[in-house]
Amino acid sequence: MGDPVQGGPSAATEADAVALDDIRRADRRIREAAEVTPLLPAPAWSERIGRPVYFKCENLQRTGAFKLRGAFNKLRAAAERGELRGVVTASSGNHGQAVAYAARHHGVPCLVVVPETVVAVKEAAIRGLGAEVMRCGTTSAERIERARQVAEERGWLYVPPYDDPDIVAGQGTVGLEIIRQLPEVETVLVPIGGGGLTSGIALAVKSLRPQADVYAVEPEIADDTRRSLAAGHVVDIGETTTIADGLRTSHPGEFTFPIVRRHVSGVLTVSEAEIRVAVRHLAVLAKLVVEPSGAVAAAAAWNHRAPGTGPLVCVLSGGNVDPGLLAELVMVER
Amino acid sequence: MGDPVQGGPSAATEADAVALDDIRRADRRIREAAEVTPLLPAPAWSERIGRPVYFKCENLQRTGAFKLRGAFNKLRAAAERGELRGVVTASSGNHGQAVAYAARHHGVPCLVVVPETVVAVKEAAIRGLGAEVMRCGTTSAERIERARQVAEERGWLYVPPYDDPDIVAGQGTVGLEIIRQLPEVETVLVPIGGGGLTSGIALAVKSLRPQADVYAVEPEIADDTRRSLAAGHVVDIGETTTIADGLRTSHPGEFTFPIVRRHVSGVLTVSEAEIRVAVRHLAVLAKLVVEPSGAVAAAAAWNHRAPGTGPLVCVLSGGNVDPGLLAELVMVER
Repeated sequence: MGDPVQGGPSAATEADAVALDDIRRADRRIREAAEVTPLLPAPAWSERIGRPVYFKCENLQRTGAFKLRGAFNKLRAAAERGELRGVVTASSGNHGQAVAYAARHHGVPCLVVVPETVVAVKEAAIRGLGAEVMRCGTTSAERIERARQVAEERGWLYVPPYDDPDIVAGQGTVGLEIIRQLPEVETVLVPIGGGGLTSGIALAVKSLRPQADVYAVEPEIADDTRRSLAAGHVVDIGETTTIADGLRTSHPGEFTFPIVRRHVSGVLTVSEAEIRVAVRHLAVLAKLVVEPSGAVAAAAAWNHRAPGTGPLVCVLSGGNVDPGLLAELVMVER
Repeated sequence: MGDPVQGGPSAATEADAVALDDIRRADRRIREAAEVTPLLPAPAWSERIGRPVYFKCENLQRTGAFKLRGAFNKLRAAAERGELRGVVTASSGNHGQAVAYAARHHGVPCLVVVPETVVAVKEAAIRGLGAEVMRCGTTSAERIERARQVAEERGWLYVPPYDDPDIVAGQGTVGLEIIRQLPEVETVLVPIGGGGLTSGIALAVKSLRPQADVYAVEPEIADDTRRSLAAGHVVDIGETTTIADGLRTSHPGEFTFPIVRRHVSGVLTVSEAEIRVAVRHLAVLAKLVVEPSGAVAAAAAWNHRAPGTGPLVCVLSGGNVDPGLLAELVMVER
């Protein structure tokens, strides 16, 4: 069972900083760039745990991850206000690629601040999308500060990775699609890092189908959300080394945490070994390439950790895994 | 360009041994077991070749390949005639798994004749679906003869891999789905081995959209269909060693060849190196696990071999690749 959340999950209300209407507006905005990703039946998972299991395939989203939804919504909202002259962000991962893609689509310049230690392939991917790359320091705090500075100097838009209403509304479109594709859904499992995807999906799902449960899933060794919910406030767990590199946030977002706290039914955790096996099973059994961060929900389901007995959706949040690591994980026989 | 076919491709007519109505009947029959597989945009391919490219994802079909469609249709047709007591087939690959799955679904016993040299994982997969496994000889001719013998002795249904109207009609449902999912399709590329999938898709597509072109794709070193079309009759090229093990047929089917000849606009070939690179690109760029046989259409498109400029569909026919080989192909940097 998931850890109980103080006060229990509730339907979306006016107390939320992002409303269903914001997600619906995002849904209309992003359609010219983002795919409605398939919801695929997962027979190997269904047979194993004895309930209908489906995968929401954000690994098949453009740029290989759900991040495009939030980034595109943020840029489009600024463009509608006539305020989009350029964009800056501070991620060399999926968010950086999504922002670069959305900037190219809007025809505005983009700067991505990356660590001095960035791997060549990630830098090349961002440059390949037409963005400028700036190397800066080694910590995320240094890069964010630099990105905000540049945004101020140039009059460009800074695009945060999750702690922002437009980003949350954009990610929430995944939840709208799940409800459209499987109206009878009972349980949704979502990988959680900073909480943008989970808070967006939870808002959409709890607004449209209050009786459904949304669970956040995180690595055992990066359980900042689980600990924060238990404490009732944001807890920082420091640096983590999980293989799920997209979930290495040291604490939940200040903006996203209250939404997560209000609407999520609990947090499920998975071990590093379970994540690795899930990546292999997704490739071998489901024929889907999923990065470790994107595989944690499928790992939780596989290991019988999802409460409930009805239709279950695991969000596969991204597929951008280093080919060498993918090969290693596929090879290992367990 | 594809090799021209004598007489040129034509719309489906009453001359065909399988009619559109047979495919439509198959479409209704298989729905309880087979998925409508997603047609996914392939932006990396589209950008490279400058036209809209889509993947028809039969790797995401139940049992990991299109083969379930034909096998299920064949079994269901026999069941409707009250003649289904058991089934026999002679394939340790995708067809064998599909027949075992369809037999389990119908609650009838299934025997799969496999080579003495069968690899353990394939035998285990078939047994895992509840089928009996019989080892026999090393050649396909020996196994088919044995399977037919057993079918006769037991009064069971022998299920051939492609040379059969019910199998062709079942595989043709892929073509129906393509036309429903992308009515404006201009070109369809289909991997060809014995010709069941290509003839079925060509019948459906040419019936519903005569102006569209269907091309068969095969490995350069297993070009039995290309040579047979050039000769105007079935040519046997002997044993081949292509990495695309599902396309190692030494000659086109006697039943399928006339249909292929009548409706296909040409044959495109790809090298072994192109197939290997395509498997890697499909995993890394498209996040899809596709077996070498299933990747030949995507390989042909990637290498600018598809005639035309409009919407192009590459059929990804299956995803059952050995994990060790997948790891090897994903790793190789080109």
